[in-house]
Amino acid sequence: MQNNQRPSAMPIHKYRPYHEQIVVDLPDRTWPSKRIEKAPRWCAVDLRDGNQALIDPMDPQRKRVMFDLLVKMGYKEIEVGFPSASQTDFDFVRHLIEDGAIPDDVTIQVLTQAREHLIARTYEAIRGAKQAIVHLYNSTSVLQRDVVFRTDKQGIIDIALEGARLCKTYEATVPETTVYYEYSPESYTGTELEFAAEICNRVMEVFVPTPERKLILNLPATVEMATPNVYADSIEWMSRHLNHRENVILSLHPHNDRGTGIAAAELGYLAGADRIEGCLFGNGERTGNVDLVALGVNMFTQGIDPQIDFSDIDQIKRTVEYCNQLPVPERSPWAGDLVFTAFSGSHQDAIKKGFEAMAARAAAQGVSVDEIEWAVPYLPVDPKDLGRSYEAVIRVNSQSGKGGVAYLLKADHALDLPRKLQIEFSGVVQEHTDAEGGEVTSAEIWRIFQDEYLPAANPAERWGRFEILSTETQSSGSDVALTVVLRDGDDQRTVHARGNGPIAAFLEVLREAGHEVTLYDYVEHTMAASGDAQAAAYVELQVDDQRLWGVGIDGDISMASLKAIVSSVNRSIRARERELVAV
Amino acid sequence: MQNNQRPSAMPIHKYRPYHEQIVVDLPDRTWPSKRIEKAPRWCAVDLRDGNQALIDPMDPQRKRVMFDLLVKMGYKEIEVGFPSASQTDFDFVRHLIEDGAIPDDVTIQVLTQAREHLIARTYEAIRGAKQAIVHLYNSTSVLQRDVVFRTDKQGIIDIALEGARLCKTYEATVPETTVYYEYSPESYTGTELEFAAEICNRVMEVFVPTPERKLILNLPATVEMATPNVYADSIEWMSRHLNHRENVILSLHPHNDRGTGIAAAELGYLAGADRIEGCLFGNGERTGNVDLVALGVNMFTQGIDPQIDFSDIDQIKRTVEYCNQLPVPERSPWAGDLVFTAFSGSHQDAIKKGFEAMAARAAAQGVSVDEIEWAVPYLPVDPKDLGRSYEAVIRVNSQSGKGGVAYLLKADHALDLPRKLQIEFSGVVQEHTDAEGGEVTSAEIWRIFQDEYLPAANPAERWGRFEILSTETQSSGSDVALTVVLRDGDDQRTVHARGNGPIAAFLEVLREAGHEVTLYDYVEHTMAASGDAQAAAYVELQVDDQRLWGVGIDGDISMASLKAIVSSVNRSIRARERELVAV
Repeated sequence: MQNNQRPSAMPIHKYRPYHEQIVVDLPDRTWPSKRIEKAPRWCAVDLRDGNQALIDPMDPQRKRVMFDLLVKMGYKEIEVGFPSASQTDFDFVRHLIEDGAIPDDVTIQVLTQAREHLIARTYEAIRGAKQAIVHLYNSTSVLQRDVVFRTDKQGIIDIALEGARLCKTYEATVPETTVYYEYSPESYTGTELEFAAEICNRVMEVFVPTPERKLILNLPATVEMATPNVYADSIEWMSRHLNHRENVILSLHPHNDRGTGIAAAELGYLAGADRIEGCLFGNGERTGNVDLVALGVNMFTQGIDPQIDFSDIDQIKRTVEYCNQLPVPERSPWAGDLVFTAFSGSHQDAIKKGFEAMAARAAAQGVSVDEIEWAVPYLPVDPKDLGRSYEAVIRVNSQSGKGGVAYLLKADHALDLPRKLQIEFSGVVQEHTDAEGGEVTSAEIWRIFQDEYLPAANPAERWGRFEILSTETQSSGSDVALTVVLRDGDDQRTVHARGNGPIAAFLEVLREAGHEVTLYDYVEHTMAASGDAQAAAYVELQVDDQRLWGVGIDGDISMASLKAIVSSVNRSIRARERELVAV
Repeated sequence: MQNNQRPSAMPIHKYRPYHEQIVVDLPDRTWPSKRIEKAPRWCAVDLRDGNQALIDPMDPQRKRVMFDLLVKMGYKEIEVGFPSASQTDFDFVRHLIEDGAIPDDVTIQVLTQAREHLIARTYEAIRGAKQAIVHLYNSTSVLQRDVVFRTDKQGIIDIALEGARLCKTYEATVPETTVYYEYSPESYTGTELEFAAEICNRVMEVFVPTPERKLILNLPATVEMATPNVYADSIEWMSRHLNHRENVILSLHPHNDRGTGIAAAELGYLAGADRIEGCLFGNGERTGNVDLVALGVNMFTQGIDPQIDFSDIDQIKRTVEYCNQLPVPERSPWAGDLVFTAFSGSHQDAIKKGFEAMAARAAAQGVSVDEIEWAVPYLPVDPKDLGRSYEAVIRVNSQSGKGGVAYLLKADHALDLPRKLQIEFSGVVQEHTDAEGGEVTSAEIWRIFQDEYLPAANPAERWGRFEILSTETQSSGSDVALTVVLRDGDDQRTVHARGNGPIAAFLEVLREAGHEVTLYDYVEHTMAASGDAQAAAYVELQVDDQRLWGVGIDGDISMASLKAIVSSVNRSIRARERELVAV
């Protein structure tokens, strides 16, 4: 089976592979054998890195809504702006402090470049905060040294050291504030590892961190430039080459240019990082920062507490969409509109069986389903744990089979269709979807079901040839005498018949009316889940030359079964009339 | 610096970590030291896995548009449907074959479950195709065996073997078609590795593949259940445990529940896979299939030919949005509206310098910029290589600094502002953005620039106190005699002055008009890039107690500089008037 792919005309000569730009060599890496076992320290940068990447950056009111959301979810380190670069950011930091909006256990973080007037302004911004992280950065990459700063490595180190010294100096201007520090060699992924380690170690000599007052060293994938295992290798390498690792909080800041930011964060965390910076739903410059929601819920699905509250993910999503004025995509992990939706029939069928198996297991153990392990095919998490309903789980389109239809009738109408009836009815639904296209809602499925199997809701709309108006049954031993007041077309008549039960007797009535009717299957159940005392009966009949199902619903279990027979016979007559029309 | 994070109330007791469900143990893995060096075989499943996950599945016309797009891009293996499960899919496969829509070097692929009536129908569907891949699957996971099929491992193996045998049998019904086979142990990620290898090896015994006619063994992450390195470990494990590996095309089919589908594909490919199935822009059930666009362009940025044509990514995106009736998100890798956009001022500044450095380097080498290595900060790929313009690269919002504004004026109006003027003007723009919020378009920046520095386009709208109506210059030695017809408010007068050049002479005119004016900086350049012979002049003046810039544009270089002086003086007067109003 040969590979027919051919070279494209894409100009590959313009690009050099990452490993020819930056050497990351760690054959004795240990991270691939590790596992994530607890939450990292999180830092939410929605109000800075996220905000700066919006078409319409947040106004002060939207900023405050975002800040309050992050606090409520449980984030304890929140980058709130770049106050020296923007008056709006400065004012917002002041607002948070002066309004007392920052809980005692939350630390705000502010970004600054390593220049004196910016650093001075940064300390002005944080005055009065109980504590704050001053986040100092400068670009260190080969490319930025070359084209932006036009300086050598020593020049770049000097910028960082001078910035760090200025921070220490200006710290005296905010005596009420406990100041912590973060240093980022920005564009780290484009920086030689030796140089990144050197500049971090030199900066550490200025800040002199201790195990009690560590320095956050943040290694940003400012641009994601390679597969995520390479980032992880680089993090493990750095972790080994930082002096006094015990005084460092090693922080990750992955962007998502290659679409592997979440993986980079997870593998980098395995590789020895302590902390992750990101944004809700992956907002941020270009393809965004790493998605904090995905990272947190990923941990949750492994039985690890993310230490963040995702229990109302729709509310979180709505709030973020309001603040960012950007939609969260339909397939955004754990939160998109479609992520718990199965359109495929076989998936729907498996999900239905998974729910049933969980219910049976819980019942057997005498506990609620919320107490047992979650195990439903195609649903790696219980949507309810994220505050989502099951409504979105099963959605029916023309590609769906019986499973989805059956699930919806059971969930929304307490009707548990026998398997063969599921197949029959899914064919009825598919005729509609093939003809009209698009999704079929649960309400539409119910309308199609009623139209096909049940009498019209409005009694004036007579449905089918026969209708049972009333019955009377007299039992004696194994013999039943049935009296039925029957509408037959426009006529009404009272008929009598006998049999070993009401069904047998009623089939006799139909035979006398000219229909050869044989019963093949009969199932019935109460509709307790619907909250009333109705019963549903399903019959499979051979009516003349047709095999088809009927459905009856009634408070009286016996009446339900007779109605099911009428349903089947009426369908048979209707189908024959259609055929005559079609021919 | 203590960690203040606290346990959440999320019900972690319901979830078991992946490694307690499925053992993947490969301490001697080799994939982390490997690199991607060539494109895998691609298989696009947009018309099957993608289509089944749409709210509004494609109608035949949209399906055909998608198929033709995939062919045009260069995909040679295309899964076109599940013809035995859906009349629409069946009809579409027939349409492709009967319409002659399938190029000779393209192989269609059709999915089927391992049941006889479905297999029979599948072969009916492909009759007349030159070649086809019949893709047989059954679920093998612990959970599906337990709750869906209620059978043991042997029962699951029997389903697969019976399916494979039936395929061989029905193959005789399509003698004109070369049939290849693919087998998927569906829900592979929930299957014990030993069992997955066993069922694959057993299926191989039925199909008896050869190096010339290999069997595709596809290992789907039907649900993504763990970090992507674990998937890669499992793929390397499988690759070692398949009998006659040389007869196998090992295929990946990652979904994206955890948001790491792209990483799983890349690491799995490093781990020994030959082939990747996915969808454009990551359409597919729930969070989607792996994104073929991201995978392909990721390779391209490393100088590896994806063997797929991404040179008009916007057209691809529009077509897919039409077919799927779902938007491609703003931050979708390489294709979203915002992925090449820098709103941050420092990013914009670096990008501008990167473009300039590339231009200089190309010029020094005497080649076009398209011939040299791409190296622009924050832009891991040249947007033009994907058919995107640079227009979207720099967008200005209230968080932007001078860089973006300067870039847009240069790109769109051939004005190369001196750095200090950039800073001055970005303050002018920021006043607008802070007041009005939102993004500022290039057109708006131009309007603000004209309003601030240039005379009104309509001569009837008199702008500022002074206007030069005409000039006459007489040079003799180092001395210049300047005659200017000047509008001064509503008056018009002719003034004469001398100096060592026209600028000095004109400053003398202004001094006589009562303004103390000193020149601090003067820059000018031709606007060749704009296609006309205009020149732009920039002056920094001290006018009375104000330091500010002026801009002049004219065909005559001397006139441009005088206009720049007028611009600066007029701005000074206007600023003073505003102050008076404000007080």
